[in-house]
Amino acid sequence: MKVAVLGATGLVGRQMLAVLERRGFPADQLVPLASSRSAGRRLPFRGQEIPVREVCEEAFEGVDLALFSAGSGPSRRWAPEAARRGAVVVDNSSAWRMDPEVPLVVPEVNGEDARKHRGIIANPNCATIQALVALAPLHREAGLEYLSAATYQSVSGTGSVAVAELEEGARAVLEGREGTPSVYPHPIAFNLLPHIGAFDDQGVSEEEWKMVRESRKILHLPDLAVSSTTVRVPVFRGHGEALVAQFREDLSPERAREILADAPGVQLADDPARGVYPLPREAEGTDPVYVGRIRRDTGLPRALALWVVSDNLLKGAALNAVQIAETLFPA
Amino acid sequence: MKVAVLGATGLVGRQMLAVLERRGFPADQLVPLASSRSAGRRLPFRGQEIPVREVCEEAFEGVDLALFSAGSGPSRRWAPEAARRGAVVVDNSSAWRMDPEVPLVVPEVNGEDARKHRGIIANPNCATIQALVALAPLHREAGLEYLSAATYQSVSGTGSVAVAELEEGARAVLEGREGTPSVYPHPIAFNLLPHIGAFDDQGVSEEEWKMVRESRKILHLPDLAVSSTTVRVPVFRGHGEALVAQFREDLSPERAREILADAPGVQLADDPARGVYPLPREAEGTDPVYVGRIRRDTGLPRALALWVVSDNLLKGAALNAVQIAETLFPA
Repeated sequence: MKVAVLGATGLVGRQMLAVLERRGFPADQLVPLASSRSAGRRLPFRGQEIPVREVCEEAFEGVDLALFSAGSGPSRRWAPEAARRGAVVVDNSSAWRMDPEVPLVVPEVNGEDARKHRGIIANPNCATIQALVALAPLHREAGLEYLSAATYQSVSGTGSVAVAELEEGARAVLEGREGTPSVYPHPIAFNLLPHIGAFDDQGVSEEEWKMVRESRKILHLPDLAVSSTTVRVPVFRGHGEALVAQFREDLSPERAREILADAPGVQLADDPARGVYPLPREAEGTDPVYVGRIRRDTGLPRALALWVVSDNLLKGAALNAVQIAETLFPA
Repeated sequence: MKVAVLGATGLVGRQMLAVLERRGFPADQLVPLASSRSAGRRLPFRGQEIPVREVCEEAFEGVDLALFSAGSGPSRRWAPEAARRGAVVVDNSSAWRMDPEVPLVVPEVNGEDARKHRGIIANPNCATIQALVALAPLHREAGLEYLSAATYQSVSGTGSVAVAELEEGARAVLEGREGTPSVYPHPIAFNLLPHIGAFDDQGVSEEEWKMVRESRKILHLPDLAVSSTTVRVPVFRGHGEALVAQFREDLSPERAREILADAPGVQLADDPARGVYPLPREAEGTDPVYVGRIRRDTGLPRALALWVVSDNLLKGAALNAVQIAETLFPA
């Protein structure tokens, strides 16, 4: 099988290569693609160093699977080309997610939707994926009616330049220097930026709309009520989410824990009295969506509060994309 | 007027001295008090260096006003002694907050409650204060029915040892060393701890209950529905809060901005398209409660979403305590 990875030199692209290798995905031939700026670099894959090619139409010739993580512009440009040549594109950008012809898939939640593709499958937003891996099994039991999400999102979601900016910004503060942000509009080190993506004229951010609209599409609940505030925090890797989920039927925390203990992709971390709850620094580099702090919500009837953490580069991006591919190309 | 400050050498105690001085509070005589460990140190006040005395019953003789910030144990021990000697105690600990005989006061919200004191007035929890300074004016207009709060709380709320732990923990990560936390159960640098105060047997933390119960008491809304998740974040100073507030009457974001533009203690910072929203690093060392990201909530009817930031050592602690004293002892 011939697998292309567009955006292969980026933070998520490199994770895609690592995940393909680690999971033994049947990629006999790997074609790392990037813009001209990164072409010629070599990336490690199964003990070899594979040269990165500049993306062009011909690069998709004979490709069975193309994993894209190069942003919306390149996705709009190249995904139809790759699909026209017979590849299945799993796209990590937001370009195609709300297209009614494009399935938006979290394998543990709506894996069957992947089969309806017409050449392009969209990988959801990182913050949405981890919330839904935790909530879908509870929804199946009790019927989700309302979701409130406040997110605590790490800088790696923005890319490697943002990781460097947090590192340098933190050094600056510790050394008593003024840092000068360039990736973010304000310093991110030891700070909180309630700003992920552009704002619409009502003051809602793109990331907040993604939580609302992508949750509805993935869960097949077009009228689901979703409140969302998305915030960038000074963490390198791993997103946290404070969720309140209200259900049609009463669902006890004990029953929720039972369900989640067996749920695919979920790792329960819920013994707060012993200091056990999901933590970004423990989630970093691992696959699960960690769920803890499960309790009856103090404010709403038939509602649970939860704290959910996952590695935004893995389940939030590269891992979920490869898992989508696995549903179509089983080993 | 004779003013005692118990816990004078702590982070909040030192801010209390600074706020008393800066606001010209009529403290002719200042008595800084602390445990035996800190007695003998000297603290600057109005150009003098005043020696810290060890707290004892006699230390409150002749004291008119006693500001306490030494934790719940010392508050329980010394507040009744000070009150019995005729002092009015404004206590920053949680010891007396839910006592029905003790007013719990945010001057902008329920300043008139301070007059009902019997010697002790409680200063609310930092996260509660800033939420209510923002919400009370909207409540007066439209009737608050439900509040959902996710907090992003800085380490200075824990004290100076926690500030040092974040600083050292961040250095450790940047230098590739393992940090060893002692104040918090897990590393706080570049991490998120959904753990503030002890957990009850339902898994709700003390800080979360404070948000619920203190909000109800201060607003005189004993049945107010409140959802709360409180999280410690790697920020030195200034708490952030993602709030969703649902009202009895419809309240537009435009009208909310009008109200908040004139509200006491509030500074609007709400032009997200130009990158203007509340930020902890800009709030640090300043008095206002900053309110921004005001928008119609995408999930609930008659609800607004807001992002609120304030300096937890000032409005969240020392400033609010001194403002309570000012309502009783006007200059």
